[in-house]
Amino acid sequence: MSERERVGFIGLGIMGAPVAMNVLKAGFPLTVWNRTASRMTPLTDAGAAAGDSPRDVASRSDITITIVSDTPDVEEVILGGQGALSGAAKGSVIVDMSTISPSVTKRIAARCRENGVAMLDAPVSGGDTGAKAGTLSIMAGGEEETFERVRPVFEAMGRTVTHCGPSGSGQATKLCNQAIGALNLLAMCEGIVLGIKQGLDPERLLQAVSNGAAGSWALKNLAPRTVKGDLSPGFMVKLQQKDLRLVMEAARELKAAMPGTALVHQLLNSVEASGNGDLGIQALITVIQKLSELKPYGEEE
Amino acid sequence: MSERERVGFIGLGIMGAPVAMNVLKAGFPLTVWNRTASRMTPLTDAGAAAGDSPRDVASRSDITITIVSDTPDVEEVILGGQGALSGAAKGSVIVDMSTISPSVTKRIAARCRENGVAMLDAPVSGGDTGAKAGTLSIMAGGEEETFERVRPVFEAMGRTVTHCGPSGSGQATKLCNQAIGALNLLAMCEGIVLGIKQGLDPERLLQAVSNGAAGSWALKNLAPRTVKGDLSPGFMVKLQQKDLRLVMEAARELKAAMPGTALVHQLLNSVEASGNGDLGIQALITVIQKLSELKPYGEEE
Repeated sequence: MSERERVGFIGLGIMGAPVAMNVLKAGFPLTVWNRTASRMTPLTDAGAAAGDSPRDVASRSDITITIVSDTPDVEEVILGGQGALSGAAKGSVIVDMSTISPSVTKRIAARCRENGVAMLDAPVSGGDTGAKAGTLSIMAGGEEETFERVRPVFEAMGRTVTHCGPSGSGQATKLCNQAIGALNLLAMCEGIVLGIKQGLDPERLLQAVSNGAAGSWALKNLAPRTVKGDLSPGFMVKLQQKDLRLVMEAARELKAAMPGTALVHQLLNSVEASGNGDLGIQALITVIQKLSELKPYGEEE
Repeated sequence: MSERERVGFIGLGIMGAPVAMNVLKAGFPLTVWNRTASRMTPLTDAGAAAGDSPRDVASRSDITITIVSDTPDVEEVILGGQGALSGAAKGSVIVDMSTISPSVTKRIAARCRENGVAMLDAPVSGGDTGAKAGTLSIMAGGEEETFERVRPVFEAMGRTVTHCGPSGSGQATKLCNQAIGALNLLAMCEGIVLGIKQGLDPERLLQAVSNGAAGSWALKNLAPRTVKGDLSPGFMVKLQQKDLRLVMEAARELKAAMPGTALVHQLLNSVEASGNGDLGIQALITVIQKLSELKPYGEEE
């Protein structure tokens, strides 16, 4: 039965499009919608139906998934006049996979519940590469029963699928994930800059330190590209900043002191001040390089 | 031929003792010395010879290894009146595996060279667990030829053995390793504290984030113990602080700006201020907990 759930997909951006494709490939009947309609074509060509609106998608789906940019977008596609909730049948599920504020998520979930619709927050980590490869980490919050119902769909998208707790716990976990990732990134940048300053060969440095007690996903995945001067985005600075703003808001609300994460957030402001918000997050190194009077990676001769 | 090199070992502390044992087990004829003589017994029981002094050890060895605590100790056991250099034959090698200042290392290497003795700096990462298991990361600086001569001995101790460049490069690489590890540690601590503040179950949080883009050695190895309140040392705060002092000295000397690493160094001062310098480095979390008015791990009810 769960194999045959009809799935709806709202938002076919960098993350949404490949994830929706994996759901389709896994055999779920799929209806999609995207604000820019042309982005639906690859999915409809592959066998998905096109919806007229989020509301239309939800009316034809047992499980409706939203994956859009920021909090206002999520509110619009779920709670708006043409939003998913207005079309969702009682007993259906809405799953928001965007990264937004945990407290807003809880409010949206409450509104869904009032209308007999279950909601999960299920943000992801792993970037567009992970989205394409189906290796995302999925962090879900909501009722255990709802989570188990949606699990087969999650398993079509990701490798690590965790039920983190009640509504909002997925978003809360994602914020922790982003804070940790941000500081691991700064670690990588300061380590490489200290290496360059000391006259070390950066590639040999990475070889020596990546598999030991300094090891991290950032060091293994971002650092080799970084020391080649490749600052192209896997994940953009401006999106990381959006997420760190959410981290800082949660920290402010709950009185969690996060001096390190705040520092990274500020240093990334400097990357954006240089007009580099569309670069990959490894562009953080350019700030440390400038502070140390080294020529920043990616700068023309 | 290289299999039969006679090895000397000076310093049988937490790191030195298991490393020396692995060298002995690999079949190298071994002579050992330690300031506290009783620590030699397990090695001599296993077949090593006991030297009378660093000088005596070096006079009976082709490759003399020192692994002691800090810069003055290294200077004493190598350059002192009874030091290894005074006993080392021309053409022999001295290898210092302690973590000390790269600039002092270069000075010691120059003194060795004047006396016809080659020197490598080869600090390690991986803690006492890695030392026992023979899985250390070894970061070596010095002449390529000398490195290749000592390589079979290194391979008896470690899994990742890297020649990082000329004299001092091993220490320089180790400082990068320590800076990166320190910030990964802060990442782990701030992430866990934000999770607790948000009401997440810390173990589920770790499960959700450890294999994704937030992943690190610290998250995988230290975090599971940390969230159980286990602050016992793999690597002690006070030793991490010694290493971060060396990082800060190098950063100062070379004008490398390392705002994140400096922050960790300061926060660990606070751990030491609480009298917890002998705890494991994961005790950094107690500072973030205190700053956030959470009960610190390890504190009595």
